[in-house]
Amino acid sequence: MAVGPAHHPDLAPVAGVRLGAAAAGLHQPDRLDLAALLLEPGARTAALFTRNSLQAAPVHLAREHLEQANPRLLLINSGVANAATGGPGLEAARAACRAAAEVAGVTASEAVPFSTGVIGEPLPLAELEAGLPACLDGPRGDPQSWWRAAEAIRTTDTRPKAASRTVGLDGERVAVTGIAKGSGMIHPDMATLLAFVSTDAAVAEEPLRALLRAATEQSFHRISVDGETSTNDAVTLSATGKAGAAPIETVTDPRFRELAAAVEGVLQDLARAVVTDGEGATRLLTIRVQGAADGQEADRVAEGIARSPLVKTAAFAGDPNWGRILSAAGAALTGDVAWERVDLYLGEALAVRGGAVDPDYTEAAGSEAMAADEVPITLELGRGIAASWMWTCDLSHEYVTINAEYRS
Amino acid sequence: MAVGPAHHPDLAPVAGVRLGAAAAGLHQPDRLDLAALLLEPGARTAALFTRNSLQAAPVHLAREHLEQANPRLLLINSGVANAATGGPGLEAARAACRAAAEVAGVTASEAVPFSTGVIGEPLPLAELEAGLPACLDGPRGDPQSWWRAAEAIRTTDTRPKAASRTVGLDGERVAVTGIAKGSGMIHPDMATLLAFVSTDAAVAEEPLRALLRAATEQSFHRISVDGETSTNDAVTLSATGKAGAAPIETVTDPRFRELAAAVEGVLQDLARAVVTDGEGATRLLTIRVQGAADGQEADRVAEGIARSPLVKTAAFAGDPNWGRILSAAGAALTGDVAWERVDLYLGEALAVRGGAVDPDYTEAAGSEAMAADEVPITLELGRGIAASWMWTCDLSHEYVTINAEYRS
Repeated sequence: MAVGPAHHPDLAPVAGVRLGAAAAGLHQPDRLDLAALLLEPGARTAALFTRNSLQAAPVHLAREHLEQANPRLLLINSGVANAATGGPGLEAARAACRAAAEVAGVTASEAVPFSTGVIGEPLPLAELEAGLPACLDGPRGDPQSWWRAAEAIRTTDTRPKAASRTVGLDGERVAVTGIAKGSGMIHPDMATLLAFVSTDAAVAEEPLRALLRAATEQSFHRISVDGETSTNDAVTLSATGKAGAAPIETVTDPRFRELAAAVEGVLQDLARAVVTDGEGATRLLTIRVQGAADGQEADRVAEGIARSPLVKTAAFAGDPNWGRILSAAGAALTGDVAWERVDLYLGEALAVRGGAVDPDYTEAAGSEAMAADEVPITLELGRGIAASWMWTCDLSHEYVTINAEYRS
Repeated sequence: MAVGPAHHPDLAPVAGVRLGAAAAGLHQPDRLDLAALLLEPGARTAALFTRNSLQAAPVHLAREHLEQANPRLLLINSGVANAATGGPGLEAARAACRAAAEVAGVTASEAVPFSTGVIGEPLPLAELEAGLPACLDGPRGDPQSWWRAAEAIRTTDTRPKAASRTVGLDGERVAVTGIAKGSGMIHPDMATLLAFVSTDAAVAEEPLRALLRAATEQSFHRISVDGETSTNDAVTLSATGKAGAAPIETVTDPRFRELAAAVEGVLQDLARAVVTDGEGATRLLTIRVQGAADGQEADRVAEGIARSPLVKTAAFAGDPNWGRILSAAGAALTGDVAWERVDLYLGEALAVRGGAVDPDYTEAAGSEAMAADEVPITLELGRGIAASWMWTCDLSHEYVTINAEYRS
C-alpha cells in the first residue's frame, strides 16, 4: 500500500555523476540489490548519519573514509544492513570497498559503503563481490540509471524514489537530483533511510555541509512512519562542480540561497515520497503546530501527534477522532496549559475552538476531511508564536503484516 | 484477545468499603457502566492523576474535592471520558457528584468523580443521574461486588481486573484489595487507566501517599501497551482503619514495609492484568535492562524497547528479531556505546554476546523462546550497575482493528 498514485518525476542528469546497479542475490534472487554512484575527480561530498548509538559497520567505515578522501564511489547494498555484526562486519565492509574500488579504478578510501536491510545477518561478501563487475560495467548518467539505482536500494519500499530540480546560477543551468529509500523505521534523526543527492554546482566544503544540514532539517527530520530510528541511516550531498558556474565559497554568497532552495526541494520531495510509501500507509497527515511557546515545544507537540498510534489508527479508519489529537498534544506539553485558547482544524473544518468541540462543527465535516488521501491537521496552541510541522502516515493492518512477516 | 487464561483471584473484603454498580446506558445499552465505592467515615484516600496536560473535567474536580474533604464516595463511569469538554464538562461532573452525594447521604465534596471512555463527547448527565439509585441501592463489600464494579469500569478491556493481598499487622489481619481498568493508551505516567485500591489498615496521610507513590512506581509506571498517556488516569489508595490494627503514622514504622509489600503486590497484579489485556495483546514481554550507567539510562532503554513498534510486531509474529531490540536500545542510548560489552537474552537463549550474534545461538532456540505466552528479554549493557524493567505486549492486527473501529 502507499498513499495516492506513484510519482515518476523527470530527472535532470547531473554532470559528473554516473550510476550502475546489479542483482547480486544478497537477500533474494533476481532483484536489483547493489548500486554504485560514481563521482568524477574534484567532486565533494557531505554526509549525515543516524544518531542511533548502534551504528552499522558501513556507517563506521563511511565516516572513516570520508575523513580520508573525497569520495569517488558510493557503494550501496540492500537486503542486509551489516549492523550488529561486530568486527567481522567491519572487515566485510572494508573488503567490499576494496573490491569495488579495484573494479572502479579508485582507491579503497575513495569508496564509501552504505547498507540497508535486516540487522544482525552477515554481509554476503562473495555474492556482493561477484555482483560488482555488472554493477560497475558501463555506468551512465541518464534518468533511467538514476531510477535503476533507486530500485536497487529499496527494501520494503513499494516504489523507487527520486526527485530533481534545476536552477540557474550565473546563467548556468545547475541540476540537483537525488534518490532515496525508506518505508519503515522512519522518524526524525533519519531512521532507516538512505538518500543520495548530487548537484553539478561547485560548492566549497563548509557551504556544502550547511546546504545538507538545512535541507535535512526541513525534510527528513520532519517525517515519522513508526517512531523508530535505525542503525544505517545516511543522507549525502555531492557537488561535482561540472556545470560551469563559479564555485560557491561561502554561505553568504547570494547564489547559496538559490541552490539551497533547490536542494531543499529535492530532499522534501524525497521525504514526502518516503512517508507516502510508509509501511502500510494509506493516508498522509501533515501535522502543523502553531502558537507554541517556543520552537522546542512546537517540535515536541508535532512529534507527539505524529507518532501517536491512536491518532494513526484513527486516521486509517478515516475517523475524525480529534480527542486523540488533543490528548497526544497534552502528553507532549508540560506545565499549565490554557486549553480555552486551543483550536484544532481537521482539514478546513474547525473541530475544536477554545478547547472544546466547536458548536458549528459536524462529525460529517470531520469525516469528509479525514477521508482524503492527504489530511492537514492544524493545532493552534495560543501560547506564543512558534510553529513546527511534520509529515506522518496512518497505522494500518498492512504495517503489522509487513513487520510481522519481514524476515520470513 | 489477551495473553493466557483470565485470572480470577480470591478477593479479601475490606472492612469499611462497600461497592455498587449499575447499567446506566451511558454509551451502550445493557452494560454495567457506573460504579460507586463507598467509604465509611474516617477513611483516608491518596490519589495520583495523569501527567497529561489535557486533564479531563473529573480529574480537575477530583483534585478539588480531595483538597476539601476526606472522600466517602468514589463515583466512576465508563463510556464517556468527559475530557476536552470545557466549562460544560466541569459543570456536568459537578452535577453528577451533587446528585450522587444526595442519594448516598454524603456532601458533594465528599464525592470524587472518575470517568473513562471516548474523549470529547459530553457526559450524558440525565442517564447517569437516572442510574444512580440502582448503583447506590444496597452496596455490599463481598467479592462479587468488587468484581461487578471491576466490570462496570471496563472500556476496551476484555476482562475485569481485581487483585488482593492480606497481611498481619500487630496480629490483626489486614486486607488490601483493588480493581482496575486499562487496555489501550497505556504507558508510564499511567495512561488510560483507573485503579481503586483499598485497605482496612489505618494509615496517616503522609505514609498513605508514600505507599501509593512507591507501589505505583513499581507497577503502573512499568507498563506500556502503545506509548500513549491519557486525559483521565487515576490511581487511588483508601485506608479505612477498620481492621483494628493501630494506625501507621510514619514511613519508619516497621509495619509500613509489610503493608507496602502488600500494596505493591496488589498494584503489580493489577498492572500485569492491564498489560496482558492490552489492546490486541497475544504475548507479554518483560524487558529487563541491566548494567546501565545510571537509573535514568536504564529506564530510558527499557522504555525505548517496550514502546518500539518493530519489537512489538516481531513479538506478535514470534520472530526472534534481536536486531530490532538492539536498534531500539541504540536509539535510547546516547554517547559512545561499547557494544562489544552488550549481551542480549531472549528467554534463556543468549542471542547476542559482545554486540554480535553468539556463535552457539540458533534461530530455533530464539523462536522457541519467542513462541511462549510470556517472554523475558534481558539486555546487559556492561556500562554500570543500574537496572530497570518494563512490561509490554505485542502489537497485533487486533490493536489496529480495535482502535480503527473504537467509535463506530
